[in-house]
Amino acid sequence: MVVTPWEVRGKVDYERLIREFGTQPMSNELLQRLERHAGGLHLQLRRRLFFSHRDLDVVLDLYEKGIKFVLYTGRGPSGPVHIGHMVPWIFTKHLQDKFDTRLYFQMTDDEKFVVDDEANLKDTTALGYENALDLIALGFEPKNTFIIYDVQDIDMLYDIALEVAKRITYSTAKAAFGFQDSTNLGWVFWPAIQAVPCFIHKKLTGENVPALIPAAIDQDPFWRITRDIAQKLGYYKPAQIHNRFLPGLGVGGKMSASEPETAIFTTDPPEVVKRKVWHAFTGGKGTVAEQKKEGANPDVCSVYQYFLYLFEENDKKLTERERQCIAGEILCGDCKKQLTERINKFLAEHQQKREKARDTIEKYHIKR
Amino acid sequence: MVVTPWEVRGKVDYERLIREFGTQPMSNELLQRLERHAGGLHLQLRRRLFFSHRDLDVVLDLYEKGIKFVLYTGRGPSGPVHIGHMVPWIFTKHLQDKFDTRLYFQMTDDEKFVVDDEANLKDTTALGYENALDLIALGFEPKNTFIIYDVQDIDMLYDIALEVAKRITYSTAKAAFGFQDSTNLGWVFWPAIQAVPCFIHKKLTGENVPALIPAAIDQDPFWRITRDIAQKLGYYKPAQIHNRFLPGLGVGGKMSASEPETAIFTTDPPEVVKRKVWHAFTGGKGTVAEQKKEGANPDVCSVYQYFLYLFEENDKKLTERERQCIAGEILCGDCKKQLTERINKFLAEHQQKREKARDTIEKYHIKR
Repeated sequence: MVVTPWEVRGKVDYERLIREFGTQPMSNELLQRLERHAGGLHLQLRRRLFFSHRDLDVVLDLYEKGIKFVLYTGRGPSGPVHIGHMVPWIFTKHLQDKFDTRLYFQMTDDEKFVVDDEANLKDTTALGYENALDLIALGFEPKNTFIIYDVQDIDMLYDIALEVAKRITYSTAKAAFGFQDSTNLGWVFWPAIQAVPCFIHKKLTGENVPALIPAAIDQDPFWRITRDIAQKLGYYKPAQIHNRFLPGLGVGGKMSASEPETAIFTTDPPEVVKRKVWHAFTGGKGTVAEQKKEGANPDVCSVYQYFLYLFEENDKKLTERERQCIAGEILCGDCKKQLTERINKFLAEHQQKREKARDTIEKYHIKR
Repeated sequence: MVVTPWEVRGKVDYERLIREFGTQPMSNELLQRLERHAGGLHLQLRRRLFFSHRDLDVVLDLYEKGIKFVLYTGRGPSGPVHIGHMVPWIFTKHLQDKFDTRLYFQMTDDEKFVVDDEANLKDTTALGYENALDLIALGFEPKNTFIIYDVQDIDMLYDIALEVAKRITYSTAKAAFGFQDSTNLGWVFWPAIQAVPCFIHKKLTGENVPALIPAAIDQDPFWRITRDIAQKLGYYKPAQIHNRFLPGLGVGGKMSASEPETAIFTTDPPEVVKRKVWHAFTGGKGTVAEQKKEGANPDVCSVYQYFLYLFEENDKKLTERERQCIAGEILCGDCKKQLTERINKFLAEHQQKREKARDTIEKYHIKR
């Protein structure tokens, strides 16, 4: 198992990540507190997609005393957005709606340029714009949503990045990220840029509040080093809530744009979705007869994961699907057909909203 | 002897620096070419203050074929400007006037912040503005002079800095600058920012021409690594012309703001200048009688260095002063009195122009 901000490989053992990264598991007590404030428990919490945190309890303590928080998440624009990317964004939208709080969304076109030998800065910047359309299409309101494009907005970020960078030694960064002598200087500096949105709210508004970061657990090393220096700079430590990776449609591994046949992109047309889902890896048996007799295994099934994390809101129906699968009462073809329909229904709407977002995208940009 | 961009210590052996840094000594042939184009040889060239170069011959070859160059130099605003800082600026002005070419002047407020634990970003930025007044007071024209303030202008620098940073490994930077595990990330990244003005002219004007950098030799490691990647990025290698350090008024060592009694600041009032020069280290003898009999040694005299590099334009008069000193015909008190008068005359004018520069400083800032 390898889990770094730039590589996720092998079967991910989430319990082990909690131990190794030194994060906290999501407790029932925390879920209850979130449920109380939000008037319900979001699907991604109920189903433990968000399984770990740092200081979520502290953020809720402060919230209950009247000190709000801001949300911060982001995207490395290395390619088109797929459904796996949007899972934590959908949860972020839920938190924003329920807690009425501001979101800073960082589009890391600089990072994607420095970490990939082949990347071109014009391309990552253009992809940042295209990726932002997907965020906006999810219904975020410009009043509370601020998209930061690193290269374009560096004038707003650089002073805070310098404050951060000055307090992180190469040695600390090497230990957190595995930097080597062959790592380039842009990559070495970049963690300072990723730290900035944790702190930028104070600069923009004068208000000192903590940031809560919903993001996949591979990003945790960034927050670990940022947390170590936050208080020296006069800020709250940024808090995190960590999600699992949405698997791809292949055998294991997270959904990845680098394996396009196993990822559903937001711009995929219906027939492409159909083809990709049709070829998805499932827990089914070799023949129909066998499966009807012995049942299948939803635990290893990529199609089932999509119902679990995104496309079956109803808990009873999900449990029923699981039961039928194990009992051999439904076949993989049935699930694939239903999932294809749901994805295509979702994407048809999403693609319309995504195009409309071109008209409003500027409203999400911080004015200066 | 230690000579790095951040530390100059011990007796500087310039011949050894040429060998160790791998630069070229200034040849008579090059001086003749410069003389031909400039219609005369500047004092600082005649007296070999500029003693070494990289690719000055290439820049002159191109110039003779009709391809101009731009000038680039700068200042790390860690304190007030002293006369030692202005020596290469005065020469830069000469080159600008004679070759009618653009100057990019980098004010490295970011660097001075990250390399000094005690420094505060607000202070280094404010000092950058104050230091710029000294540059402008030397008579640079806004039409051809562009002052880059790193923090304020980072939006203009960052994309090129990323291109540079991506192509320099930590290993290369470690070898060039002596970075260690304890070096902070801001410092590690900074060489990429210092490289940007070598290349920015193309971005601003579309014109691809080489940069010629008049600067003290301690800055050479920056250009060494920048030269290695310039052509990969589609630019000419930046060329350099290196000056010696103007010594302080104490025993050896370069003039340094960290030893204020041995440095003449541009804002020093006449009585302070008088006191500092009066306490300067000279090559004089213990008693007047002894000195009249045996003569003194101008080679080690800090006061003589000031006549040599700045305050005696007339070569014959300088030679005569040297002769009189060695012969014991003038005493240190005489030289100190005359130097004090010349410095105070220069500073009286400079301080007026410096205050006037507050009205025009914005004209030197690149508009966007």
